[in-house]
Amino acid sequence: MRAIRKPRPGPGLEVCDVPKPTVGPGDVLIRVHHAGVCGTDLHIAQWDPWAQGRLHPPVVIGHEFAGAVVECGPGVGDEFTIGQLVTAEGHIICGHCRQCRTGNGHICQRTSIIGVDRDGAFADYIAMPATNVMALGDIPTTVGAIMDPMGNAFHTVLTGAEVPGSVVLVLGCGPIGCFAVGIARAAGAVKVIATDVNPTRLELARRMGADVVLNPATDDVVARVLAETDGEGADLVCEMSGHPTALTQAFKSARLGGRVNLLGLPKGEVALNLSTDVIFRGVTVYGVIGRRMYETWHQMRTFLSSGHLDPMPVVTHRFPLEQIDAALEAIASGAAGKVILEIGD
Amino acid sequence: MRAIRKPRPGPGLEVCDVPKPTVGPGDVLIRVHHAGVCGTDLHIAQWDPWAQGRLHPPVVIGHEFAGAVVECGPGVGDEFTIGQLVTAEGHIICGHCRQCRTGNGHICQRTSIIGVDRDGAFADYIAMPATNVMALGDIPTTVGAIMDPMGNAFHTVLTGAEVPGSVVLVLGCGPIGCFAVGIARAAGAVKVIATDVNPTRLELARRMGADVVLNPATDDVVARVLAETDGEGADLVCEMSGHPTALTQAFKSARLGGRVNLLGLPKGEVALNLSTDVIFRGVTVYGVIGRRMYETWHQMRTFLSSGHLDPMPVVTHRFPLEQIDAALEAIASGAAGKVILEIGD
Amino acid sequence: MRAIRKPRPGPGLEVCDVPKPTVGPGDVLIRVHHAGVCGTDLHIAQWDPWAQGRLHPPVVIGHEFAGAVVECGPGVGDEFTIGQLVTAEGHIICGHCRQCRTGNGHICQRTSIIGVDRDGAFADYIAMPATNVMALGDIPTTVGAIMDPMGNAFHTVLTGAEVPGSVVLVLGCGPIGCFAVGIARAAGAVKVIATDVNPTRLELARRMGADVVLNPATDDVVARVLAETDGEGADLVCEMSGHPTALTQAFKSARLGGRVNLLGLPKGEVALNLSTDVIFRGVTVYGVIGRRMYETWHQMRTFLSSGHLDPMPVVTHRFPLEQIDAALEAIASGAAGKVILEIGD
Amino acid sequence: MRAIRKPRPGPGLEVCDVPKPTVGPGDVLIRVHHAGVCGTDLHIAQWDPWAQGRLHPPVVIGHEFAGAVVECGPGVGDEFTIGQLVTAEGHIICGHCRQCRTGNGHICQRTSIIGVDRDGAFADYIAMPATNVMALGDIPTTVGAIMDPMGNAFHTVLTGAEVPGSVVLVLGCGPIGCFAVGIARAAGAVKVIATDVNPTRLELARRMGADVVLNPATDDVVARVLAETDGEGADLVCEMSGHPTALTQAFKSARLGGRVNLLGLPKGEVALNLSTDVIFRGVTVYGVIGRRMYETWHQMRTFLSSGHLDPMPVVTHRFPLEQIDAALEAIASGAAGKVILEIGD
Repeated sequence: MRAIRKPRPGPGLEVCDVPKPTVGPGDVLIRVHHAGVCGTDLHIAQWDPWAQGRLHPPVVIGHEFAGAVVECGPGVGDEFTIGQLVTAEGHIICGHCRQCRTGNGHICQRTSIIGVDRDGAFADYIAMPATNVMALGDIPTTVGAIMDPMGNAFHTVLTGAEVPGSVVLVLGCGPIGCFAVGIARAAGAVKVIATDVNPTRLELARRMGADVVLNPATDDVVARVLAETDGEGADLVCEMSGHPTALTQAFKSARLGGRVNLLGLPKGEVALNLSTDVIFRGVTVYGVIGRRMYETWHQMRTFLSSGHLDPMPVVTHRFPLEQIDAALEAIASGAAGKVILEIGD
Repeated sequence: MRAIRKPRPGPGLEVCDVPKPTVGPGDVLIRVHHAGVCGTDLHIAQWDPWAQGRLHPPVVIGHEFAGAVVECGPGVGDEFTIGQLVTAEGHIICGHCRQCRTGNGHICQRTSIIGVDRDGAFADYIAMPATNVMALGDIPTTVGAIMDPMGNAFHTVLTGAEVPGSVVLVLGCGPIGCFAVGIARAAGAVKVIATDVNPTRLELARRMGADVVLNPATDDVVARVLAETDGEGADLVCEMSGHPTALTQAFKSARLGGRVNLLGLPKGEVALNLSTDVIFRGVTVYGVIGRRMYETWHQMRTFLSSGHLDPMPVVTHRFPLEQIDAALEAIASGAAGKVILEIGD
Repeated sequence: MRAIRKPRPGPGLEVCDVPKPTVGPGDVLIRVHHAGVCGTDLHIAQWDPWAQGRLHPPVVIGHEFAGAVVECGPGVGDEFTIGQLVTAEGHIICGHCRQCRTGNGHICQRTSIIGVDRDGAFADYIAMPATNVMALGDIPTTVGAIMDPMGNAFHTVLTGAEVPGSVVLVLGCGPIGCFAVGIARAAGAVKVIATDVNPTRLELARRMGADVVLNPATDDVVARVLAETDGEGADLVCEMSGHPTALTQAFKSARLGGRVNLLGLPKGEVALNLSTDVIFRGVTVYGVIGRRMYETWHQMRTFLSSGHLDPMPVVTHRFPLEQIDAALEAIASGAAGKVILEIGD
Repeated sequence: MRAIRKPRPGPGLEVCDVPKPTVGPGDVLIRVHHAGVCGTDLHIAQWDPWAQGRLHPPVVIGHEFAGAVVECGPGVGDEFTIGQLVTAEGHIICGHCRQCRTGNGHICQRTSIIGVDRDGAFADYIAMPATNVMALGDIPTTVGAIMDPMGNAFHTVLTGAEVPGSVVLVLGCGPIGCFAVGIARAAGAVKVIATDVNPTRLELARRMGADVVLNPATDDVVARVLAETDGEGADLVCEMSGHPTALTQAFKSARLGGRVNLLGLPKGEVALNLSTDVIFRGVTVYGVIGRRMYETWHQMRTFLSSGHLDPMPVVTHRFPLEQIDAALEAIASGAAGKVILEIGD
């Protein structure tokens, strides 16, 4: 079958033929229809320090996908039928550590990620543990293919804050930030403010429902957020960029007693004034990683099936599997929304 | 000044002249613009057993209102300005019992209710403790006058359940039930199902955003709710009727692990199968009384000021103060939405 | 191997030889050391209406146990080692329904219970899915054998209420009620009040840490609870008896804004005054079934391993497997604490 | 009356005679029996930059106290009786901002603190708004005088974490840290680990119930915490020191999905690796300021009245009012527990 593979240490990817995966006990074999391309895939292609420290080539990459069930391994039971459209959680967890046992599998220390630690989804077929496979129902595979990053956004927006009636600030409008804007809107936020340095992304945020869009290159973000909130600040700040400037804005834009949920990954250390920005203000901060397994998936399905969230405006580019390099270039440009590979049907 | 008064024990009300209230320390005197008429006012007029046991006439009735500040008593400070539009929480609480001290003033045992335990709002003026007075900002007094019952609905819908992405069932579509429908919709419910035996009220529920309306006289409510939820049941059930049949439906329509918030007051005892309906199903039940003081008011203002909730379709009748009898007749008919008195300006 | 079996429909049990269970993929075979006898086992022996409607004999009974791992089936991985002491959650759930997927496996509708729906633990060996098996660490199998009912008590005491600093009322001091007393004490309750009609059980409650014990046959429970709480009522009421009188006491003894967690199963309907007992009082009610899978197990292990909870005073009787009839008689007497079978080592 | 006053800008305090406070509407006049001396009082005496920026001398200092009611101003009602023993919350808040209206008065932006922004408690008498006055019941004034800092500790330990069954790490064992140790113990923690560089303070922590005490000068705190928790880390970390090293330890000692509550005030910015320490670990951080008004006070009274928390081991020094300089020296030494002034009776 066709696959996109990191063949050996060093920059670059190859499109090649590899054997179809075997289907072990508890596994489901899935024909991949669509797959989402992520910044992580770009890091792997570029062979950045993180990739060098983590991957053991050769490995088929790709961790966001949806497709159709073609085979169920022994012990899978009657949960899935052949031809059923599905997507999957790409974090394969141990299931018996303390985190897994107490509803926090998203921070299992033994997590193995498809497309990173084991063969992934940029291929004609992928075998996944049935536990990780989620039925799509009436959700199309174009949407199913981007539920992994959308789940990051759901996890960020819907954890810990009472979103209905609140003001939500989203810092950074890459695809996950844009999803966060749409989710906050659908979840009853009364005002959604979004920031990004890229006007194209701000336009995507606007289409996803942002009431106010700010460009940190030209706008005083903190001042504008305070002005939009009668001087109170935002109830919930979703930091999606990892940029040090945005982190400072995050804490200074949160209201007294508000919440800052951090998804964007800063590189290295960030200097924070915990006294004035967190302690005196009674702020709560939460680190977001992955998706709640599987509360987040349930939330996504209800919002998507009911039509209360339409993520498709975020999808700006589609390529066939063979054009992975073009797909990665679109991401590297910084102006793309979500980029999808069209693999099969 | 003019006032509507229960002059003495027994049925009936009188419209009469009474002295303008005095303004004590910490009080705010308010010129009443609009007032809402409630089922409680009907009970008082009819002098039902509850009214006989609770009221000590003569008393000016009415507890839902909005108007303009005309005078601030000593010690009120700079919170209010003359002419400012305001409404007020009608439960005057002791402030120092355990409930008041721990954020549960709505269940203070020493609560004194305006229009019931002390002179109320169906009058040209009312004096209220400044603590109870809430600035309206850009919310008109027609809306301000109905924030008391709307607050009951907010308290019911937004307590304990994660409304975004959920299915909400509202049993009973009087004015508070209709508000609940609109609130659930604005708070991100993906499906709102409403029931009532009165087609006019179901039409109001529809206008407030109900996706599905059911008439228990002709529909099998439990079966229909299950059919609308893939057999799961509703995530949140808001019981607004107090009717024994609706209570049974409430428990049987809630999903496993779901929530039943009870606002409607059943008369006397109700037989419940706690084993099958609550325990085996892991259901949570919550008794709703009044409004959270003052979280609920803050929520209302954000939803109303932002335009995310428009309660005005629920207002079906308006009368001048002198026509209180006509107003009560409209309520007694069972077909009215919210009924408002136009008192001053 | 030896086993205690319901051989056919009708009253009675038999001790007999049955084949050792086979160990399928994902299964762990356990040599049973100790097993707990439960009121459910008595219902099965007596062949009461519930048992008639649920069981399909022949079936080996028993669902509370602990022992040593003797074999791991294919796919179990390195979680368990031969000889390791373990216990197990007896509810085998589907793993993919909405409840299972959102952290509520304890209310999975497809639950299969060992000793009821499939062969159980009153035998020399039992095969369990590895997912359900919990390592005991330094907890002895006498304690491990009673972690199933202890888990019911943990679930009841530690759900939804802030126990530290609170007054906890436990209605019904069978083994689970006695565990609840000890758990509330260990979890920082400042006062634990326990009720039962049986003086022996009240003595057990006292030994588990009850500050006040009341006998409803001679004490006015509601009045005494109010007297012990400055007239406020209990913060958390744990109803462990299912008795209609106790249910009434439960609601009338809860403080305003308090919580009533229901574990005891009432037979048939119970008449409740929801207006005065739940709604006007702002009370929350929660139906407790099973154990949170597996948060409850984690809680138990921390309390037991640290020595902060010693459940052994509750164990009043021990019998060899062959004396199951004597064990059931002890339970039927109403004066026993927890009854254990000593099966192997 | 006697008072300890900052007479003018610059270092030093004076013991002098000042007029007895007047008792306005809503005020309670209190004869001070005991008062607690705080690090803040030392900062004021030393006239550090914070004090220079905040205080407007002359001002009577002191914000921790307890005593007896001697007079109630107009409008106070029947809540207090002459001679009743009371303490008081020293943060006087506006009562009508968003924070005050939604149960977060502890972060009211218009807070006026006694002994800082207005005359305080190091005097024979103090007048306080009745709202801020808390009855002591059977709690002695020596304990009442230290409920302000104890409330900081309650707020830190009991916010957001499920303490029963958990491992709590307290970094910094000044008086508030020592209180935190005792509270965690009383609230059902299964293990309490405490750190400080001062052996005397570690001994106080041990007396308050710490299972493990660590000295960062000689112990590898993070390694020891991991060793004490099977490599998991602490469930709840209470950072009471504000020291940069302790802050780093706080994040690295918290378990995956754990919680870090920050009370100690770092000076200036602190460099944090949010990616590895917060985001990848799914940690929640909360800034603690003041006491929840008045949930924290209710919690304190239940723990203290029931005898479940004895804070007196923390009190190491007592001085008469005139010896304030000696009291401040004891604090400046870094080896004191809590220091109390004995003022009246």
